[in-house]
Amino acid sequence: MLPFRVHILGCGSATPTLRHFASSQVVELKGKLFMIDCGEGTQIQLRRSKLCFNNLHHIFITHLHGDHCFGLIGLISSLGLLGRTQPLHVYAPKELGPMLDAQMQLFCQGLEYEVEFHAVDTTKNIIIYEDRSLTVETVPLEHRVPCCGYLFREKPALPHIRREMIDLYHIPVSHINNIKSGQDWITDEGNVIPNSRLTRPADSPRCYAYCSDTKYIPTLHCLLGGVTTLYHESTYADDYRDHADTYCHSTASDAAKVARDAGVKQLIIGHFSKRYQDETVLLKEAQKIFPNTHLADEMAVFDV
Amino acid sequence: MLPFRVHILGCGSATPTLRHFASSQVVELKGKLFMIDCGEGTQIQLRRSKLCFNNLHHIFITHLHGDHCFGLIGLISSLGLLGRTQPLHVYAPKELGPMLDAQMQLFCQGLEYEVEFHAVDTTKNIIIYEDRSLTVETVPLEHRVPCCGYLFREKPALPHIRREMIDLYHIPVSHINNIKSGQDWITDEGNVIPNSRLTRPADSPRCYAYCSDTKYIPTLHCLLGGVTTLYHESTYADDYRDHADTYCHSTASDAAKVARDAGVKQLIIGHFSKRYQDETVLLKEAQKIFPNTHLADEMAVFDV
Repeated sequence: MLPFRVHILGCGSATPTLRHFASSQVVELKGKLFMIDCGEGTQIQLRRSKLCFNNLHHIFITHLHGDHCFGLIGLISSLGLLGRTQPLHVYAPKELGPMLDAQMQLFCQGLEYEVEFHAVDTTKNIIIYEDRSLTVETVPLEHRVPCCGYLFREKPALPHIRREMIDLYHIPVSHINNIKSGQDWITDEGNVIPNSRLTRPADSPRCYAYCSDTKYIPTLHCLLGGVTTLYHESTYADDYRDHADTYCHSTASDAAKVARDAGVKQLIIGHFSKRYQDETVLLKEAQKIFPNTHLADEMAVFDV
Repeated sequence: MLPFRVHILGCGSATPTLRHFASSQVVELKGKLFMIDCGEGTQIQLRRSKLCFNNLHHIFITHLHGDHCFGLIGLISSLGLLGRTQPLHVYAPKELGPMLDAQMQLFCQGLEYEVEFHAVDTTKNIIIYEDRSLTVETVPLEHRVPCCGYLFREKPALPHIRREMIDLYHIPVSHINNIKSGQDWITDEGNVIPNSRLTRPADSPRCYAYCSDTKYIPTLHCLLGGVTTLYHESTYADDYRDHADTYCHSTASDAAKVARDAGVKQLIIGHFSKRYQDETVLLKEAQKIFPNTHLADEMAVFDV
């Protein structure tokens, strides 16, 4: 299987700390890079990650709090300085559009590539991007401002060829694609070899969902069907339940409940409040409910 | 003497590197902090420096290139999250005013302190700030957009009291300030003790000038009278003279010439192009003309 990975660039929350950068991560699928959120310092972290700036064509912003988007104008500006010519697509709540225009007008005169802005309706669960390999859907979340998560759904792959059967029946290379697409094989003697003998089932499609920032939504799992890896914010542990309620954030056990109810394979938690010097308290709380939970950390890479 | 220091938060140039942050520094005089420029990541560096966010009341922006101001909205936002109530004064070319208003409107609803914007005329050499300890002047520079440096001039101090003379003539504490202000002392016998016997001359006022970004200005030294420490950009060495000319930047020898002609005590060079992996080439070039030159570096602290 081609790599489907998540690179964590930043997983802190609003107030800056020396341990975490503001929110940003990069989803990598078949060499293409998709950024989710772009807090201040993201371009520094992107450079640190050694991911190729030129392979980034799409940036998805969840909401217009600074720790999720203040790095965008700096990244756009630097991509220009690095000689970019290919367009960059930015998906975000609509209010960011005019702001981005004004910033680029003031700070990015002479930019030699296009920044194409796509206003996102954060209240709907719809596909907003599609290519040969994947779709990206919005996932409505509940925060203090309009906010949505993003769900990266790999398209179903074709089945695997059984090499030994190809050899046995002397099937020419020119017919491999037909067989992958479901055709049977008819031998010179007229015998029909059913497709199921010639192939093994395709890998199950992988699917990554990013849910931050949000209060706990007990029905969120209904939108997460097929998700294999879930990133869900865990700003607090249950000891700060009141803060979570006040600021529309989740606790680690909230995140774990969503993962459990959605039946995902692994959960990554992040968006840690600065008050947790040691985040294992968050990890342990989540693991009680959903054992295969991992802590996000800058430069960590997760296979989806 | 009370500390008069410069804390380097970032000394890179436009394109991001892993070695340098974008431009920002903090001038510290008698416990007050004055920030000059505020590139992306400045708030991270400010935290790293352990300087107290609450002692920062004035930010001076030299020009509206992103590497000098993209960190401003993030810093303003975080100061709000940290519970600031005291006003913050921002001095910058006038075009930043409406942009800052729009950003704060969109991203900083409910901020509990005032951000007071002061439009700076970058073409004039005038005092734009004054308190009991110092004045801040603009220094017109020549760059691709309107740009000025800032000059921090300590006010002349009062002379030092000669403790042994105070004891000898039994001068009461209540008269010390009069003597510091220049009065003579008249003994009970009516003898006049001249002030010059009672005091030693005050320390010479210190003065710091920040000049970035600019092409070489052969007459710049005329505006730098009394400067003891000069920060001057050295984006390139002389091997990239053509780049310096094209982009209105200076070379290390340009910076050294300004320092030499201004008669400063020390020169700090910074705003290094990413092409210099080893900046000692810049240092050596400057030191040939002005020996007491130092390389800026993140978290370096210089006494003015």
